[in-house]
Amino acid sequence: MNSFGRLFRISIFGESHGAGVGILLDGVKPGMHLTSEDFKADLIRRKSGGKGTTPRIEADEIIIESGVFNDLTTGAPVLLRFLNTNTKSKDYSNLVNHPRPSHSDYTAHEKYNGYNDYRGGGHFSARLTLGIVAAGVVAKKMLDGVQFETKLANLGGCTDTTKFNEILDKVIEAHDSVGGVVSLKAKNVPVGLGEPYFDSLESTISHLLFSIGGVKGVEFGIGFEGAKLNGSSFNDCIINESGTTKTNNNGGINGGISNGNDIDVRVFVKPTPSIGVAQDTFNFKNGRVEELIIEGRHDAAIILRAMVVLEACLAIALCDAALISNAYKK
Amino acid sequence: MNSFGRLFRISIFGESHGAGVGILLDGVKPGMHLTSEDFKADLIRRKSGGKGTTPRIEADEIIIESGVFNDLTTGAPVLLRFLNTNTKSKDYSNLVNHPRPSHSDYTAHEKYNGYNDYRGGGHFSARLTLGIVAAGVVAKKMLDGVQFETKLANLGGCTDTTKFNEILDKVIEAHDSVGGVVSLKAKNVPVGLGEPYFDSLESTISHLLFSIGGVKGVEFGIGFEGAKLNGSSFNDCIINESGTTKTNNNGGINGGISNGNDIDVRVFVKPTPSIGVAQDTFNFKNGRVEELIIEGRHDAAIILRAMVVLEACLAIALCDAALISNAYKK
Amino acid sequence: MNSFGRLFRISIFGESHGAGVGILLDGVKPGMHLTSEDFKADLIRRKSGGKGTTPRIEADEIIIESGVFNDLTTGAPVLLRFLNTNTKSKDYSNLVNHPRPSHSDYTAHEKYNGYNDYRGGGHFSARLTLGIVAAGVVAKKMLDGVQFETKLANLGGCTDTTKFNEILDKVIEAHDSVGGVVSLKAKNVPVGLGEPYFDSLESTISHLLFSIGGVKGVEFGIGFEGAKLNGSSFNDCIINESGTTKTNNNGGINGGISNGNDIDVRVFVKPTPSIGVAQDTFNFKNGRVEELIIEGRHDAAIILRAMVVLEACLAIALCDAALISNAYKK
Amino acid sequence: MNSFGRLFRISIFGESHGAGVGILLDGVKPGMHLTSEDFKADLIRRKSGGKGTTPRIEADEIIIESGVFNDLTTGAPVLLRFLNTNTKSKDYSNLVNHPRPSHSDYTAHEKYNGYNDYRGGGHFSARLTLGIVAAGVVAKKMLDGVQFETKLANLGGCTDTTKFNEILDKVIEAHDSVGGVVSLKAKNVPVGLGEPYFDSLESTISHLLFSIGGVKGVEFGIGFEGAKLNGSSFNDCIINESGTTKTNNNGGINGGISNGNDIDVRVFVKPTPSIGVAQDTFNFKNGRVEELIIEGRHDAAIILRAMVVLEACLAIALCDAALISNAYKK
Repeated sequence: MNSFGRLFRISIFGESHGAGVGILLDGVKPGMHLTSEDFKADLIRRKSGGKGTTPRIEADEIIIESGVFNDLTTGAPVLLRFLNTNTKSKDYSNLVNHPRPSHSDYTAHEKYNGYNDYRGGGHFSARLTLGIVAAGVVAKKMLDGVQFETKLANLGGCTDTTKFNEILDKVIEAHDSVGGVVSLKAKNVPVGLGEPYFDSLESTISHLLFSIGGVKGVEFGIGFEGAKLNGSSFNDCIINESGTTKTNNNGGINGGISNGNDIDVRVFVKPTPSIGVAQDTFNFKNGRVEELIIEGRHDAAIILRAMVVLEACLAIALCDAALISNAYKK
Repeated sequence: MNSFGRLFRISIFGESHGAGVGILLDGVKPGMHLTSEDFKADLIRRKSGGKGTTPRIEADEIIIESGVFNDLTTGAPVLLRFLNTNTKSKDYSNLVNHPRPSHSDYTAHEKYNGYNDYRGGGHFSARLTLGIVAAGVVAKKMLDGVQFETKLANLGGCTDTTKFNEILDKVIEAHDSVGGVVSLKAKNVPVGLGEPYFDSLESTISHLLFSIGGVKGVEFGIGFEGAKLNGSSFNDCIINESGTTKTNNNGGINGGISNGNDIDVRVFVKPTPSIGVAQDTFNFKNGRVEELIIEGRHDAAIILRAMVVLEACLAIALCDAALISNAYKK
Repeated sequence: MNSFGRLFRISIFGESHGAGVGILLDGVKPGMHLTSEDFKADLIRRKSGGKGTTPRIEADEIIIESGVFNDLTTGAPVLLRFLNTNTKSKDYSNLVNHPRPSHSDYTAHEKYNGYNDYRGGGHFSARLTLGIVAAGVVAKKMLDGVQFETKLANLGGCTDTTKFNEILDKVIEAHDSVGGVVSLKAKNVPVGLGEPYFDSLESTISHLLFSIGGVKGVEFGIGFEGAKLNGSSFNDCIINESGTTKTNNNGGINGGISNGNDIDVRVFVKPTPSIGVAQDTFNFKNGRVEELIIEGRHDAAIILRAMVVLEACLAIALCDAALISNAYKK
Repeated sequence: MNSFGRLFRISIFGESHGAGVGILLDGVKPGMHLTSEDFKADLIRRKSGGKGTTPRIEADEIIIESGVFNDLTTGAPVLLRFLNTNTKSKDYSNLVNHPRPSHSDYTAHEKYNGYNDYRGGGHFSARLTLGIVAAGVVAKKMLDGVQFETKLANLGGCTDTTKFNEILDKVIEAHDSVGGVVSLKAKNVPVGLGEPYFDSLESTISHLLFSIGGVKGVEFGIGFEGAKLNGSSFNDCIINESGTTKTNNNGGINGGISNGNDIDVRVFVKPTPSIGVAQDTFNFKNGRVEELIIEGRHDAAIILRAMVVLEACLAIALCDAALISNAYKK
């Protein structure tokens, strides 16, 4: 469903080519200073316009519609909206019969009996991540003291950051797209967040990360590479009374509970499915596999804009876990 | 918290050295034949005793305590219990001050203010997965027609299955442990399961998988390897009116919704943290890093027993998604 | 929290004197025709302007902001908004120190540490019920075939409807207010709705009804009067194979499950707390009990406008129960 | 469904004539002393054996199966079980075709397609309230400082307690049954509990109360009687800086939030539907209305045993609200 969280609850809405997109936040702490200024930095990080991103540029001005009075949160639900202003009124109806590969076109059509808004991906558009970023800003404010460090760790299979520019140039020239891996770290997370059994910190973080379109892998600490290590090499030795460990192969979480070391997550984002290259895919109207050419504006590397979105997911999960943990403190 | 699911709800309980462990199932379809026989095959797959597994052998006899009448489910909650019979009454209290590395000893102690049952990991013990396996059996019955195919894809970094025995021999001899990657597939999953935005099928599957101790990575389809591909190679071309795709790099899910192809998930399970090798870790009593020797019975490769547990997680997530999907059918 | 429901989920937001109010609906069936016309009749029933209602008149024009495409629901969340246009910019800050009796002024101030939006009751304003009415309209559409019959059964302690006008005249003249009892009936409800143990149909219906400001009593069937009957008189005799009963003292629900007879609920709505009569209440600024005169526009009988709101609550609860029930059908 | 609560979560299970009944508690504070002794007083209050109660006497010995270690709660789920020992092996199958009036026999049969355990009411039996009482005991321990005062306010329409014995004698002699009204009060409840909009304190309290079989009315403060008062008489004047009010017509709750005065709830419990008097009801086998004589052991006034159950419901709702409130404290 379109909500997540136990105390800090987020509910998302909107479509790419409808009136707008946004998010409704419940469980926001009262008395926090909150204005549109607070959102600017993160919204700019998500913005398109740079190399590898779509030229569809939206103002992305946030409207704080409820839950804030005299620039302070009231404890009531905070509705955050973004208007759609730069929607091209082109005809998307061909995608109904000739769905784009690796997209939600086909599955959404089947699930909603053909009633889904298919224009620009509708409710499945990456434009909905505006709301996630906004929710992340509020979560970070509530998580006072936690720092986030987000990096592009891998682009197109390459981990050498000095070569990223070159990789982008190549895929742009080929009208193709590229994916990669984002590294997320949260520092100064207190010991004790996470609610095993089922709401382990890995569970709630991955739940949110995997709700973002294009995310197809999540690993903590050393991740899949750790398959090569024996237990004696993998185990993180505790070295002091704060629980600091010599290594951080577990990514800051043991038994589903934060251990005070950096929360360390890596997220695989697949190459943008919308590409300028002609592709074969089934045409449901004539019952044949036919070439599809997707026109319009695309992100050659949506991962560049996804970085702040994934960071927001991490912040949201930690914020909810921190509130629950607080409920059991004296 | 200790529950998961929207309609098919599971609630877990128990401790390694308490009276027993088990699971409470809500939202079970009435009229299904269900006896202890149904659980045998999967419980045996989880059982210890083979190479690389602990010699602590429990009968693991399931008690169906409620929700079944005349061998048929009634629609009322199904309580499934397993008694602990083979708990060695040794002293675990040294682990309170000298926590095992990469274990929940330290985090659970901090979160629960020292009141957690530390004996054999308490509520964090792998013994709790008995309940998950049992819930998986019921989920599979409700998912009539879906087949599961679960394989050990990687042991200790090696993907050549013929060498697995050798790898096990080595780590057992070294009193060490080893992890790896489990490949899960669900076949014949109908198109349309999954509830984006936040309850994308990847989100709910990963949520459950990451609740299992030792799971540190989850990827769908080609997963992290896909970073090396451009969009034109990554995209899965639809080839017929059933939505079958030529490749399955997306792991059977688009836009968070099943697309009718195999659900394809890979799960990284870290090496068992309990090893027979001496390890350094902090002793909170004397404030020094000291050598710890963990006595008792361990699994050199807990991943061998985890396979059926992870399969159960996949089944549980699919079962809940199928019920929700059903609610919107005529 | 500000959400309710398991499959048909509603999330409310807004304030009396902020930008507006509204509701976000999740789990709406795709393919339903939905335009602003659908809401008109029920919104008019809630409207002020008649005898006993506040002269603050708002346009109450609904904005369908998402989840509808070509006048058909898409299956994505439906955001429904109402702008506030007729908010008088008077000073409400005296209510912070001198809270109105029987209002949320004091409790909201304490709960939210003084950060609540106190203007016109803020998030606690009856204006929020616009969203409830709108959600009710959608619920009724989804509950195709169920009819609702809502009546004012008691005004100011009087059950003779011919005398209601006279009672209103009297309280209006006295600048006082009056409450009463609303009778709600839902007809043609199928047998089998309700999810005991805890989501008995009485539980979810009352949960929603008691979330409406001013509701202080809920009874089913004969209700509290039934204390006078012995079991042999109270019991409803089943008279045919459809489960029709001779009497309906149980209000159409047995064991928390609808029995096919009319769902029959009665709701006590207290007299509007805002009155034009001077009242004593504590002044937190000077620490004295002092006379308070509430200026502004009031409803002498908010119950008149609450009727359609309470009907909406009943519809919302039934709609969610019907979806859950559907999930277990073949 | 069979669970309730946001942080303090209860999940109920069991049947009248199965292995037993019980409840699973999640979100229990670690470090609380808890032994079977803690439950004794409340379990005795629920026990049968006195005048007006069934002669089926069960030992009702509680088994604390998990979540407690060294007599202290651990923070892990607490499973509480009661075995069924005194189940008479009589034949209940006639109730399948000839359902008892005002019982769940017919609705449960329809909802669960005839697969429900009908013996002694199965999952709908009053025996399940054992779990509620046990959960209430734990809730009260967590609500340190709150006192509960529970009284029988009305029996068979009579409010003069000195005549209750006489009323009981009469219905017992007539093999009939009687209902009434229970008055519940919670004292020393802090200001600020309750989570409007939808989780108003009235909403969550009534949700739990209406989940108990036989409850058909809930009112707060003066309740339905308040329809006779004008606002000027109904309103509760605040008289000091603690928020104490001169009257308590609102039952200690304003805007869905506790105001520091006594939480005052009244609950109507219908006459026990099982009576020894012959009653007409439909026989689905032969399609005729026929006389039914219910044999076996009944409570002439189940309300006597329900009192502690309803008190437990109030405690559970308050406990969950207190935890949520705590999450937002510094």
